[in-house]
Amino acid sequence: MCRFLAYAGPPVFLDELLVRPSASLIAQASKAREAKTAVNADGCGVGWYGERSEPGLYRGVLPAWSDANLVSLCRQIRSRLFLAHVRAATFGEVATANCHPFAHGRHLFMHNGQVGGYERLRRRMDALIPDDLYAARKGTSDSEALFLAAVGQGLDRDPVGAIARTLRDIVALARDAGEADEPLRFAAVHTDGETLHAYRWASDGNPPSLYCREEGEGIVVASEPCDEGSGFWTPVPSGTLLTVERRSGARLRMFDPLAEEAERRVRAA
Amino acid sequence: MCRFLAYAGPPVFLDELLVRPSASLIAQASKAREAKTAVNADGCGVGWYGERSEPGLYRGVLPAWSDANLVSLCRQIRSRLFLAHVRAATFGEVATANCHPFAHGRHLFMHNGQVGGYERLRRRMDALIPDDLYAARKGTSDSEALFLAAVGQGLDRDPVGAIARTLRDIVALARDAGEADEPLRFAAVHTDGETLHAYRWASDGNPPSLYCREEGEGIVVASEPCDEGSGFWTPVPSGTLLTVERRSGARLRMFDPLAEEAERRVRAA
Amino acid sequence: MCRFLAYAGPPVFLDELLVRPSASLIAQASKAREAKTAVNADGCGVGWYGERSEPGLYRGVLPAWSDANLVSLCRQIRSRLFLAHVRAATFGEVATANCHPFAHGRHLFMHNGQVGGYERLRRRMDALIPDDLYAARKGTSDSEALFLAAVGQGLDRDPVGAIARTLRDIVALARDAGEADEPLRFAAVHTDGETLHAYRWASDGNPPSLYCREEGEGIVVASEPCDEGSGFWTPVPSGTLLTVERRSGARLRMFDPLAEEAERRVRAA
Amino acid sequence: MCRFLAYAGPPVFLDELLVRPSASLIAQASKAREAKTAVNADGCGVGWYGERSEPGLYRGVLPAWSDANLVSLCRQIRSRLFLAHVRAATFGEVATANCHPFAHGRHLFMHNGQVGGYERLRRRMDALIPDDLYAARKGTSDSEALFLAAVGQGLDRDPVGAIARTLRDIVALARDAGEADEPLRFAAVHTDGETLHAYRWASDGNPPSLYCREEGEGIVVASEPCDEGSGFWTPVPSGTLLTVERRSGARLRMFDPLAEEAERRVRAA
Repeated sequence: MCRFLAYAGPPVFLDELLVRPSASLIAQASKAREAKTAVNADGCGVGWYGERSEPGLYRGVLPAWSDANLVSLCRQIRSRLFLAHVRAATFGEVATANCHPFAHGRHLFMHNGQVGGYERLRRRMDALIPDDLYAARKGTSDSEALFLAAVGQGLDRDPVGAIARTLRDIVALARDAGEADEPLRFAAVHTDGETLHAYRWASDGNPPSLYCREEGEGIVVASEPCDEGSGFWTPVPSGTLLTVERRSGARLRMFDPLAEEAERRVRAA
Repeated sequence: MCRFLAYAGPPVFLDELLVRPSASLIAQASKAREAKTAVNADGCGVGWYGERSEPGLYRGVLPAWSDANLVSLCRQIRSRLFLAHVRAATFGEVATANCHPFAHGRHLFMHNGQVGGYERLRRRMDALIPDDLYAARKGTSDSEALFLAAVGQGLDRDPVGAIARTLRDIVALARDAGEADEPLRFAAVHTDGETLHAYRWASDGNPPSLYCREEGEGIVVASEPCDEGSGFWTPVPSGTLLTVERRSGARLRMFDPLAEEAERRVRAA
Repeated sequence: MCRFLAYAGPPVFLDELLVRPSASLIAQASKAREAKTAVNADGCGVGWYGERSEPGLYRGVLPAWSDANLVSLCRQIRSRLFLAHVRAATFGEVATANCHPFAHGRHLFMHNGQVGGYERLRRRMDALIPDDLYAARKGTSDSEALFLAAVGQGLDRDPVGAIARTLRDIVALARDAGEADEPLRFAAVHTDGETLHAYRWASDGNPPSLYCREEGEGIVVASEPCDEGSGFWTPVPSGTLLTVERRSGARLRMFDPLAEEAERRVRAA
Repeated sequence: MCRFLAYAGPPVFLDELLVRPSASLIAQASKAREAKTAVNADGCGVGWYGERSEPGLYRGVLPAWSDANLVSLCRQIRSRLFLAHVRAATFGEVATANCHPFAHGRHLFMHNGQVGGYERLRRRMDALIPDDLYAARKGTSDSEALFLAAVGQGLDRDPVGAIARTLRDIVALARDAGEADEPLRFAAVHTDGETLHAYRWASDGNPPSLYCREEGEGIVVASEPCDEGSGFWTPVPSGTLLTVERRSGARLRMFDPLAEEAERRVRAA
């Protein structure tokens, strides 16, 4: 399990959301309240959009609370769109390449959850990554494999469909591998630098916590409220997708990657 | 605050005491039960005596639970005398040079506690280190300064007296600096490779926790019991010094570095 | 390219071979003389056999010359069989998981050379690793993939045959992938804790440098001589395998993994 | 010895000067041409001014060429004033706290050179740091001590005078300590976020190399030319100070911190 925070809206300094709040993401590294593991000290990372089309990326293996570089960057960088993450390793060593967010071209992705039985499914998940993307596989985590598989599924032109197809594929391969009992739990944020998508879904109906809040004219999405007065935080319902777009603002809709498959089965029957 | 464990006795593999127990030191890195801070993830270290007169030393900045080197070393090394430590930084960056144990010649030292007001006393404490030892100052922690000051006080030929004089000096300089209200809390282990000294003392009568236990024909000293069935662990009383020698075994005696000073004052009055 | 050194014989302290010589492996990290790259500062590692059946393993990402842990370990550990390596990354991030030696059960392996076109062959090479070993893949280097593939080929019961078959497989898949022009260059050491095998071979007849020398009653194998008076170092010829066994001592023989294939083709024709 | 580069002028992306040139600072980390040591791989750092009054700071212990964070930051950050440094440690462990640049309030400082005999002078140099700045001493390098001493000498209101007095003090204490034969060599850049000062001076007339070049309407100062066509680089003469101000542009003048003292002696005689 891990903890994360994302923001989309008018440019803000990152430290306003990541460092200053009483229960900031950095504080959650040592004392998360709604995570399976209170300690999320297996590395940290931040990705942000500035003047380039591709995002900036900083990742490190130290616990967030002792990473002076992270704090200095958060204080300097002002961004209209950024993702930040503190990791509690499930599978995959503590290594920079296993820290979130993951970047590919103009895309950023981060994940909190688990691919049940990943240790046994890893090779099959790697097989979901297309040949031409395989060189981009730098670490050994389930999250990076999931992201690259989604890139291969067309994240660029059909972001939600690509994520849905990837989750469906993983559920299918777990079932084929006799790991059907192992749940796929997925709280994640993906962005192409313009639109932000935040997902909360699990194959067993029990996804990790996810909240959102208005921040001025922007939107914050986070694993858990990051300030004490958490009155303004709204839980994101299980099985939904929160989309934040520059023009049209935030929108919540149902998200069930298995639905289409269920539908297909009905038709096939 | 930090957590530590030391052993003296017939040679044992380090992992028997540091890795395998249910509440091992490595487990305490993320979940200590009797420490001020449950998380002790600001680095770790182990020092041991093998075939050389001076000890081996391994220290790293990652949390102990994700340090594969530490686990491999503990599994390979068998030693009659070793010290191990997981750090929760109070003052001094997360850096190898600030990790315990500290080594000097054939001596090893580790500490759990605090020098109250250290941030303001640091220069005065550095001044306690003799000129010829100052080049050995590699980090910025209070514990290293205390150790080098004690080396300067004659740790080699009068180990207990040197520690006592150093603690007395620190209490005096805190008083002179108007920091008398800040307590000096000291749970520590020092060894010259033959005799092990474990101290538990505080200027305000409130030292960090310390326990000991027989382990076969050897003795274990630890910040807190490292297995669930903690029936055999004996608390080391506040204001005492536990000495373990090869021939004469373990011995507990009173330790009050300020007593001599009190005596002096009485005489002077 | 990288530099390495291995030793088999009566127990010696590691620092005698790794630290003290004027052109020691640690010195070669910043100034190798016979390597493609003079700087080999992308991490370092040492594996050794002690009292356990499986080896100890220490690996770190800092350049060897600034790794105080490495020096302390080398000074403490005395071993009858050890491997040491300093890395110059070709493919694979600077990360602990990409540092040599690699360990699997009681086996140790390290490599200096290249799998030509690896970036394009990586997926195919990963496919050489059997399913039940895939979870042991921790990094992204060609060397680790080669090692795990060899484990899958039966390194345990037929060490030389397993390496030969693996090299043959890699040459074949490179040919199939249209990378036949890219050479496979292989200077490597493998041991199961008893017998040491040092290989020097390349598909284009141009393998990395490799030397050996008697050290008392033991044998040292190294990428290049590690002392100035290099008179006693013997170059290991290209296309040979040096085997060191406890009882029978050192033996040099021809090694051409493609020979059997050539033979097979002749037969098939 | 180390290598560095600084820029002042219209905002540019950092990678244009630090990453893209054929002999960029990152390339100099493994292959400097005019440094005492060709390898400058003991850490790296960059400090820059953005929207805040105090600078951003990124420092890491890995060699610059393998630091993906450094490259990403250089690609994202656009700045009118920045300093970058790759380190070859003389004294002071490889640790983040010993990496340049050093920051204090709105000041940045970096140094290439040596305080001769520093290991023996260290305590005396620490004594040059005023009490209220001593808590800001995070590492053990001569450069950080020199910088904090200069802050204490009034770097804020009299930048050049403060540096001159500090250098004079160090020369004096070296003389008093019987280290007069050990040279003080000083190529350094200091800035308060507005004006950039680049110094090249040595007590033995033999300072490290330093060059400058026009870059559009800005000025680059560097230890050595960072592109092959080095025709436009001008050597900064020994014993001079290059000052770059927003309004008045670049100006070169004599700099001899000992001159005033010589003068004083003449007067006193």
